[in-house]
Amino acid sequence: MLGPRHQRVQRLRRLVRQRTTRRSDGAFVAEGVKVLGAALDARAPVEAVYYSSEAAGAPGALDVVERAREGGVRVFALQRGVVERVADAVSPQPVLGVVGNVDRPLREVLARAPSGAPLVVCVDVRDPGNLGAIVRVADAAGACGVVCCDTCADVFNPKAVRASAGSLFHVPVVVDVGAADVLRVLRDAGYRCVAAVAHGGEDYAAAELGDRVALVLGNEAHGLDDVLLAALDARVSIPMAGGAESLNVAIAAAVVSFELARRHRLGPGGSDAGTGGPAGGAPGGVVRSGGEPSADEPVR
Amino acid sequence: MLGPRHQRVQRLRRLVRQRTTRRSDGAFVAEGVKVLGAALDARAPVEAVYYSSEAAGAPGALDVVERAREGGVRVFALQRGVVERVADAVSPQPVLGVVGNVDRPLREVLARAPSGAPLVVCVDVRDPGNLGAIVRVADAAGACGVVCCDTCADVFNPKAVRASAGSLFHVPVVVDVGAADVLRVLRDAGYRCVAAVAHGGEDYAAAELGDRVALVLGNEAHGLDDVLLAALDARVSIPMAGGAESLNVAIAAAVVSFELARRHRLGPGGSDAGTGGPAGGAPGGVVRSGGEPSADEPVR
Repeated sequence: MLGPRHQRVQRLRRLVRQRTTRRSDGAFVAEGVKVLGAALDARAPVEAVYYSSEAAGAPGALDVVERAREGGVRVFALQRGVVERVADAVSPQPVLGVVGNVDRPLREVLARAPSGAPLVVCVDVRDPGNLGAIVRVADAAGACGVVCCDTCADVFNPKAVRASAGSLFHVPVVVDVGAADVLRVLRDAGYRCVAAVAHGGEDYAAAELGDRVALVLGNEAHGLDDVLLAALDARVSIPMAGGAESLNVAIAAAVVSFELARRHRLGPGGSDAGTGGPAGGAPGGVVRSGGEPSADEPVR
Repeated sequence: MLGPRHQRVQRLRRLVRQRTTRRSDGAFVAEGVKVLGAALDARAPVEAVYYSSEAAGAPGALDVVERAREGGVRVFALQRGVVERVADAVSPQPVLGVVGNVDRPLREVLARAPSGAPLVVCVDVRDPGNLGAIVRVADAAGACGVVCCDTCADVFNPKAVRASAGSLFHVPVVVDVGAADVLRVLRDAGYRCVAAVAHGGEDYAAAELGDRVALVLGNEAHGLDDVLLAALDARVSIPMAGGAESLNVAIAAAVVSFELARRHRLGPGGSDAGTGGPAGGAPGGVVRSGGEPSADEPVR
């Protein structure tokens, strides 16, 4: 049983608290049954697993520990009270694992992208909870990856890992890149870079966005800066009723991403609405009956 | 300047911390420039405003205090360090106000509902941050109200108020009601009660939902219970790609609510997709050119 001063425990603490340690060590901490289980399911590079005496009373916790052990992962018990000193959360999890960074190079992500899958690009998204929520949304909406540019929070921050609810191990993430470089690569790869802006963009639901979309999301308070905006191909906004001034960035990501998923799944019906023509005039308007991907969405 | 033991400060503290005090006093605390500003804008019943010496350095803070004073609200300065003892947040806001509860009776909300505006019904949504985020989403998506049933978190909890980002003062909320009673009233009023379920429901994007929809959301971990589910009119799910198991409840609320808003805004294009017919066959398929509400969506 490891005590609070054991060097492995000290390292755990640093990995939880310090982005610099996470980068220099190329590793991060996955806390809890669900997230650690997702790491094992996805065959992520789990280096070591730690559990507290409370694991015996937590549903699924010992099972995850056992699965890790069977998979050849080193497993360590922590003395009572150690996990509370290490963990980031208000309610510390009785199991945690150190996982090697799972980020991928952008070009690899693009090369492996399924047809029609959008890419989500975050620029200066500062709140790790929002960033993790965006990863979860991107996963569920079928995005091919999430890119974290410029001054984004660390997607391997414990709050981000927790908010991703395991999706960090399902959808590839690209980290520590500059937005300008990313845009250049995306342009070369034929992506249409579409900014989500709070106001003044085209109605996201009426806009034709094509089938190679990079959805670019900006800072929670300030959005995207003007220089970057000017370099993008289009701007969409989510029309808001009532007195609402803006949407949370993860909510906005969800609304636009699932609209893209809807078109991909059901065909482009509705995507040409707002042009004043009859609803029947959808180009390429073959309606697919669920599940089957449509490769022929109109590209503007 | 009020010190930490002043009875007004003691009451503030209790209003922040205790749901029972909020209910017995019929009041809650709105923290920060944005939320308190929204309360004043909406002419909510602000009883008193408190500010700390840090207000001078916070953009907009003294302006909000002055607006409150001009509106006849009593204003009090707090001694240094008091706001930190009162406030709930990690980073306490330099201005806060006590506001009379803004909840409304369900029948009044329904009577004032604009044509085609959905109602959002939360059952056992336990996290106040999620509940506040749902209120923000409902406001932005043009819902006519948010109903908090059974064991929901308190929508006047400081975390919920903060997460609502002012929307609590824009969209009417109904609190402290039982789901069974709410469903009876909604049925009588001609609402179609549609459950959002993680798996096994009809594709939300392909389902015809009508123009009087009550979207029913369940608990974060357990969803809606079987007895309640059996009493509802339909179940929709958001098809998920990748390895995602579920979506955050506020994200799910956003995806379905903005799909309803999209149909309302742009006409039903796409809503009949998945039937195997051509996209042109939309009933009532007149496409409106943005903004103008469509009153003739098909009701199943």
